[in-house]
Amino acid sequence: MKSIYLDNAATTPLIPEVIETIQSSMQSNFGNPSSTHHIGRLAKSAVETARKSIAKHFNIGAGEIIFTAGGTEADNLILFNAVSNLKVATIITSKIEHHAVLHTIDYLKKIFNIEVVFVDLDAKGNVVLSHLESLLSGYPNKTCLVSLMYVNNEIGNLLAIDEIVNLCQKHHAYFHSDAVQAIGHYQIDLKEMPIDFLAASAHKFHGPKGVGFAYFKKGHGISPMLHGGNQEKGARSSTENVHSILGMETALTTALRNLEEDTITIKEVKKYCMNSLQSAFPTIKFNGNSGDLNLSSYTILNAQFATNNSMLIFQLDMAGIAVSGGSACQSGSSQGSHVLAEILNETGSNNTSIRFSFSKLTTMADIDFLVTSLKKIIN
Amino acid sequence: MKSIYLDNAATTPLIPEVIETIQSSMQSNFGNPSSTHHIGRLAKSAVETARKSIAKHFNIGAGEIIFTAGGTEADNLILFNAVSNLKVATIITSKIEHHAVLHTIDYLKKIFNIEVVFVDLDAKGNVVLSHLESLLSGYPNKTCLVSLMYVNNEIGNLLAIDEIVNLCQKHHAYFHSDAVQAIGHYQIDLKEMPIDFLAASAHKFHGPKGVGFAYFKKGHGISPMLHGGNQEKGARSSTENVHSILGMETALTTALRNLEEDTITIKEVKKYCMNSLQSAFPTIKFNGNSGDLNLSSYTILNAQFATNNSMLIFQLDMAGIAVSGGSACQSGSSQGSHVLAEILNETGSNNTSIRFSFSKLTTMADIDFLVTSLKKIIN
Repeated sequence: MKSIYLDNAATTPLIPEVIETIQSSMQSNFGNPSSTHHIGRLAKSAVETARKSIAKHFNIGAGEIIFTAGGTEADNLILFNAVSNLKVATIITSKIEHHAVLHTIDYLKKIFNIEVVFVDLDAKGNVVLSHLESLLSGYPNKTCLVSLMYVNNEIGNLLAIDEIVNLCQKHHAYFHSDAVQAIGHYQIDLKEMPIDFLAASAHKFHGPKGVGFAYFKKGHGISPMLHGGNQEKGARSSTENVHSILGMETALTTALRNLEEDTITIKEVKKYCMNSLQSAFPTIKFNGNSGDLNLSSYTILNAQFATNNSMLIFQLDMAGIAVSGGSACQSGSSQGSHVLAEILNETGSNNTSIRFSFSKLTTMADIDFLVTSLKKIIN
Repeated sequence: MKSIYLDNAATTPLIPEVIETIQSSMQSNFGNPSSTHHIGRLAKSAVETARKSIAKHFNIGAGEIIFTAGGTEADNLILFNAVSNLKVATIITSKIEHHAVLHTIDYLKKIFNIEVVFVDLDAKGNVVLSHLESLLSGYPNKTCLVSLMYVNNEIGNLLAIDEIVNLCQKHHAYFHSDAVQAIGHYQIDLKEMPIDFLAASAHKFHGPKGVGFAYFKKGHGISPMLHGGNQEKGARSSTENVHSILGMETALTTALRNLEEDTITIKEVKKYCMNSLQSAFPTIKFNGNSGDLNLSSYTILNAQFATNNSMLIFQLDMAGIAVSGGSACQSGSSQGSHVLAEILNETGSNNTSIRFSFSKLTTMADIDFLVTSLKKIIN
């Protein structure tokens, strides 16, 4: 049976370069980076070379990159550190963040009794900047952290990052961004853009699962969540995931090397998908900013069909097409999406929303097959 | 240059079967196990099949295995859960545990104000059972957790596990064991042996780094450390490390399938190493139980040479031989070992200790080269 993958925001296929790096590392570089002998040093050197390369892509120092087991751990570590170490007493966030942020904040609120404030969103799910500014003006120096995601994983909204960074700077608030859907998809220069904390996940840019990193701006210090052998300069105890770290470096370097042409290619696929869907379903709507190529990621399109069909995603799957109703955790049910629940009004309940997400491996033929299949199912 | 690896307690080389499993999984099974479509289900099914297989090796239910990013995270999760969820108020442990246990307990003491009690050890580093019993008798039902490692990672001591499990049962205390050096090296039947919690790390039994698991006995519940998408039934949020989990299952299944013959082979290597070292250095001593084949792991030999040479490990490394002074974090310095500091008396300070650790890949020729090199360096 045909298998069409349009769920690249959930995870991406590993590219051959990454598989090759991991395989070669598994075969020839098995040492424990904490061992001081030649076999350990070889592993240590490979990990530190990867760290330097990753840091260079963001124009930062290698010491500002902490390797983690993924984006979720990076978000958890950053938020935990902000409260327990930097003594942040208020977190300003939005109701459409990823659960790795929202559930962690819930937990921190319960344990540390911090204040949590939600910034207003407009009808498209964009942060109302004037509300953010009025919130920020109420908190003294460095007691507040703003956590807003770079690219929304469900509706693809691009954050007004420049304006938000400026507001945080002006009001002396820390700024964290879950950049899991942005890293490897956008060039981010952290010298130019003074963000304090970022979370990244390798498997969102054709790297391996089980590895990611947190960016901690120099000087912020890190209070660890995992205690033990003091790896990562004490920031995260655990034997380094050497093979996957090297695979992540290859994935990121490959992504950024081909960024310009891949962006053009994928944007064309998204545009073609939008046009084809609009021709086939004239009443279609695109959720959030996802229908605007300038205000949303070129990898995500969240479409609302004028049909109340809770089986739509299942029927597409039966036709061999993998899509999602929201984030991976809520696949198969648009009801499960806290993002759509937040931005869609009542009339949305007679409609069915699907997230299509693309990568450089998506073809125009994939889109044709999708639209043909959708027509068969819906009409 | 020759390269002889005698540091298998720090990490082990990946075996071809594991590399093959990981490579094949990376190529053909990239889905996110939380996605409900066919590509996600394939990944989910692979992860759950691996979980069932691992659980079966311990004669437990699949729901009792929580995948983690390694042994350190497993120890942290177990200890954190014991205090925050099970309301353990006292932890009884020993001063020669791994830092993943000791540093985590230090942290929990600071945050939750728990009581930490160290059980007495004899001159060889063995738990004094009568002291453990007298300690245990002082605590009411289920307010106490005993954390003692199955195999000591530096001196190889085998815990008197049956007696300790019985004492914990008798006094209604929880029992956790960091079994990182035991799993894949010993057959452990958790139906026969009612342990509450175990921590395991794949890279100690020829599996990949960055993955391990925690065993939580059914009914104990799990309060997560990582918050987000509620993977692992809410016990650990983070996209599952599919490829490495499958690699870990292959490593464990392979290890246990060949356990009997591998144990005999490695024990012969250890015996040969002991005899050769004793012939070459008649004043040699073996630290802890490591010189007793019945009371220590067949993979670890910790030898004390009658020479005060802080460069010994470095000189062996120059000759191409990878060994350690203690755990990987303290390689290259026997002073750094908190385990040896605890059990060696003053006279030890004129001696130099080295940990040799073996695997099924270690040969008698490796031992000959080691002894020849040591003779050149020391005499």
